Amino acid sequence: MEPVYRLTISCPDRVGIVAKVGQFFSGHGGWIVEANHYSDPVSGHFFMRHCIRVNSLPFGLEELKAQFAPIAEEFGMDWQVNDSGAPKKVILMASKESHCLVDLLHRWHSKELHCDIPCVISNHDTLRSLVEWHGIPFFHVPVDPANKAEHFARVNAIVEEHKADTIVLARYMQIIPPELCSRYHGQVINIHHSFLPSFVGAKPYHQAAERGVKLIGATCHYVTPELDAGPIIDQDVIRISHNDTVDDMVRLGKDVEKMVLARGVRSHLEDRVLLHGNKTIVF
Amino acid sequence: MEPVYRLTISCPDRVGIVAKVGQFFSGHGGWIVEANHYSDPVSGHFFMRHCIRVNSLPFGLEELKAQFAPIAEEFGMDWQVNDSGAPKKVILMASKESHCLVDLLHRWHSKELHCDIPCVISNHDTLRSLVEWHGIPFFHVPVDPANKAEHFARVNAIVEEHKADTIVLARYMQIIPPELCSRYHGQVINIHHSFLPSFVGAKPYHQAAERGVKLIGATCHYVTPELDAGPIIDQDVIRISHNDTVDDMVRLGKDVEKMVLARGVRSHLEDRVLLHGNKTIVF
Amino acid sequence: MEPVYRLTISCPDRVGIVAKVGQFFSGHGGWIVEANHYSDPVSGHFFMRHCIRVNSLPFGLEELKAQFAPIAEEFGMDWQVNDSGAPKKVILMASKESHCLVDLLHRWHSKELHCDIPCVISNHDTLRSLVEWHGIPFFHVPVDPANKAEHFARVNAIVEEHKADTIVLARYMQIIPPELCSRYHGQVINIHHSFLPSFVGAKPYHQAAERGVKLIGATCHYVTPELDAGPIIDQDVIRISHNDTVDDMVRLGKDVEKMVLARGVRSHLEDRVLLHGNKTIVF
Amino acid sequence: MEPVYRLTISCPDRVGIVAKVGQFFSGHGGWIVEANHYSDPVSGHFFMRHCIRVNSLPFGLEELKAQFAPIAEEFGMDWQVNDSGAPKKVILMASKESHCLVDLLHRWHSKELHCDIPCVISNHDTLRSLVEWHGIPFFHVPVDPANKAEHFARVNAIVEEHKADTIVLARYMQIIPPELCSRYHGQVINIHHSFLPSFVGAKPYHQAAERGVKLIGATCHYVTPELDAGPIIDQDVIRISHNDTVDDMVRLGKDVEKMVLARGVRSHLEDRVLLHGNKTIVF
Repeated sequence: MEPVYRLTISCPDRVGIVAKVGQFFSGHGGWIVEANHYSDPVSGHFFMRHCIRVNSLPFGLEELKAQFAPIAEEFGMDWQVNDSGAPKKVILMASKESHCLVDLLHRWHSKELHCDIPCVISNHDTLRSLVEWHGIPFFHVPVDPANKAEHFARVNAIVEEHKADTIVLARYMQIIPPELCSRYHGQVINIHHSFLPSFVGAKPYHQAAERGVKLIGATCHYVTPELDAGPIIDQDVIRISHNDTVDDMVRLGKDVEKMVLARGVRSHLEDRVLLHGNKTIVF
Repeated sequence: MEPVYRLTISCPDRVGIVAKVGQFFSGHGGWIVEANHYSDPVSGHFFMRHCIRVNSLPFGLEELKAQFAPIAEEFGMDWQVNDSGAPKKVILMASKESHCLVDLLHRWHSKELHCDIPCVISNHDTLRSLVEWHGIPFFHVPVDPANKAEHFARVNAIVEEHKADTIVLARYMQIIPPELCSRYHGQVINIHHSFLPSFVGAKPYHQAAERGVKLIGATCHYVTPELDAGPIIDQDVIRISHNDTVDDMVRLGKDVEKMVLARGVRSHLEDRVLLHGNKTIVF
Repeated sequence: MEPVYRLTISCPDRVGIVAKVGQFFSGHGGWIVEANHYSDPVSGHFFMRHCIRVNSLPFGLEELKAQFAPIAEEFGMDWQVNDSGAPKKVILMASKESHCLVDLLHRWHSKELHCDIPCVISNHDTLRSLVEWHGIPFFHVPVDPANKAEHFARVNAIVEEHKADTIVLARYMQIIPPELCSRYHGQVINIHHSFLPSFVGAKPYHQAAERGVKLIGATCHYVTPELDAGPIIDQDVIRISHNDTVDDMVRLGKDVEKMVLARGVRSHLEDRVLLHGNKTIVF
Repeated sequence: MEPVYRLTISCPDRVGIVAKVGQFFSGHGGWIVEANHYSDPVSGHFFMRHCIRVNSLPFGLEELKAQFAPIAEEFGMDWQVNDSGAPKKVILMASKESHCLVDLLHRWHSKELHCDIPCVISNHDTLRSLVEWHGIPFFHVPVDPANKAEHFARVNAIVEEHKADTIVLARYMQIIPPELCSRYHGQVINIHHSFLPSFVGAKPYHQAAERGVKLIGATCHYVTPELDAGPIIDQDVIRISHNDTVDDMVRLGKDVEKMVLARGVRSHLEDRVLLHGNKTIVF
């Protein structure tokens, strides 16, 4: 895949944004290979994502940023531009359950997911061998009710040390403290094993069985201080019947969890997810 | 379709139920064309539905009931047996929205749904012409906050007068009073325009937009005194995106609502739904 | 909904298209509320759809066309611009089966589908009363193997007389002659009751039963001289099991057919479907 | 999970089968925990699957077979009975693509799939390390157009040596010779990366792109001498758009392939798949 710059923009909607941005790029010979726009009729906000061939522009990323800055200022844009050739650094966190971790590692290993994975952190040592087979360092950082602060200090240190820009909670099962949520706002992705907002918190499949629902689901979302209430990136469901026990739900749900998490992570890695308050625009 | 007797049974599980029932029918030459069983490992309860060709048995429905009663007693069965040739009497209730009503009427008119529809009741006169085109009587029973008791007394009178055994709330939008829920326990079917238990009550699509979910759904359930909390018969969802406004959700949701309601009603009409506390077994 | 001009463009891809079009509209104060782009990496072709608020431009449709023409010529564009306030004229054709026709008529009647329906044509008289209840003229144009030429001459005359720009075959079940396909290229929409390219031609559900597939489907496509081989607009499937007879498939398939047809027709009416050889871009 | 005997039966339908089988088990105190029946109205054939608790019966598998044989003979049954505690021996065959293999190995490793995997055979050495990490022997049996007979003789020898009763082609990409298909009739499971019968043979995603379909799929089926034409166990699809290149289809398709293959293999391992000519009954 030819490298592209990915420009994402959000700003108040008005006449001339598309023209101005289009003109900027075409004036420099920039070849746009992908373009998405969304005007929110409720908030009057405008969102945009453009991919421009790196090789079509006469300058590099820093110069692009410098040249684009005045336009951004004119329109009051929140904006970002990334080089698809500079993959994000993603730290995976897991507990004992392996399905989401195996899935993400395999997608990375087979070059389906373009990112660096500097390390995996887990509160159990169970998945060490699996992770290390992939040539990825594994940090076992135990946690118990008494040492939570210590645990998360250590997690935070590892994240900073590896200069990670994304943390994926691949069924990590611990509640992230608010200060960590805030520090990495829009960078911590979780998979919750229910179709949110139903069945927040612990044991969602037990809750689902209790209520007698006919579909179970999974939700990939950014983590915020309020439990399971952050901006949703993706969701999906699978049909169950009276015949499925909680154990069956756990098994069937795994397939939905890993698919939804992988799709959400992929969208995030490709800068397709724009935040808008507690919602997402996913191009 | 050849007429069949539909026997549904629920009782504590133990050895010999299937054999006893099987023996009973084969002893009389009864030809079983459909058989479903479910043993609930949690409650230790057993559920069964059999369809037996009417013409293969040497006796009619009343005699079948009489002969089967001792077996039912021996095993402590809750049981029912119906003749597929004697369609249920279903009263439809609607408000102004036509999509669910049109859908059900068309399925009935094209002989996809086997039931009698003695009348349609609505708190508005909007859909009269549509209903009457189908040759079905239409009762306009207005309702306002001041006359609810009167309204439901009239509804109840119409239901009793027509000896209905099922009431389908095809987007009727009024809360059924508890005594009516109790009187027609397991006989009143509602369609709620959300994936329950999310978004109970009013304006579920607005709630969905507020939360930023990526799927919207509909739930067909039996009505109980607690709002939107009755046993679920069927559910389904449809994918939406940031691009869909509440109006889009309303439009897209209609297709899910009518499909889920039609499937739920069909299952009910064919005696496929067995109640188990606040859950359903749907064979 | 505020009226918009819908501009669709296809042309060879190159630098500057988006900028030029954007500049054109912003130069006239045009407010773009929806914008879609697609660059086909295989053919090097570029496709675009823009919706611009009618009230934001200082001129009407004809002047817009005149002013835009030079740009279109410069880039070698195939292009169209329509006013969303001027609904398309759609003639529905049906046979005896009512499910697709009822569905489309209901969506039109409840203002979900924005179009005019000048008349319905059928080779049977079965659905007359249903159509006429909607206040739409019904033409019964019988057909038999001996009078096909005559039949289609009459159909063609009705289409021309009503200045229809779209013909929807809502389970019409007759093969359209090649000259009619060519005359109305990209304007005749059919629903085929299989997941094409499987089960072309007659009795697809029988073919599906024969092969033992586990999903059945429906395909909405533009009609071309080659049977069931035209550009696909939309498709969907539904799960079946060994338990479903051909009659069950026919019943279950109806729901998929009408949903897929309605979605395809809606996309067509909103100028979201661009033809690219035998494929479609659906924005 | 408590061990059960799984009895599967197919025979001409007639009165008394269910009763006779039920009586047999209840007479010996046999506790039926799962029961499925299907009467095919077209062929007049009857299919049944029962799970009976091992511990509820006074005898073992061999004695059960001996006692049941007279009943089987009376009704002309094709029948099988297996002990769920004696897992099947499954040999996996793969080529270079890892997604299906990784998925199956992970499900086996996490005890989701109950079977023994005596070895993996591949015509490439690519996946050796992955397989061996799981503690499973890996046989690299190269193949080229000149040595096909030799290759399959070696494959056959390995299968016989390990007394495998199931062979799963996890994207093995070689055509199995007819004599091997016949020898292991109903025991060789393949995943084909299209929604069969569309796109038989090589490069189905290229065929799908060529035709412009809006859904792509995968089919899990038993292998027979005719290419991609054996009895279908399971199928599924995923939505694509004009925006998806063949590479995107390959990527998206992988998720469907591995899910469908895993479901099909699971059904097979649990004796849920009964063959009926070129079709399957999947209980």
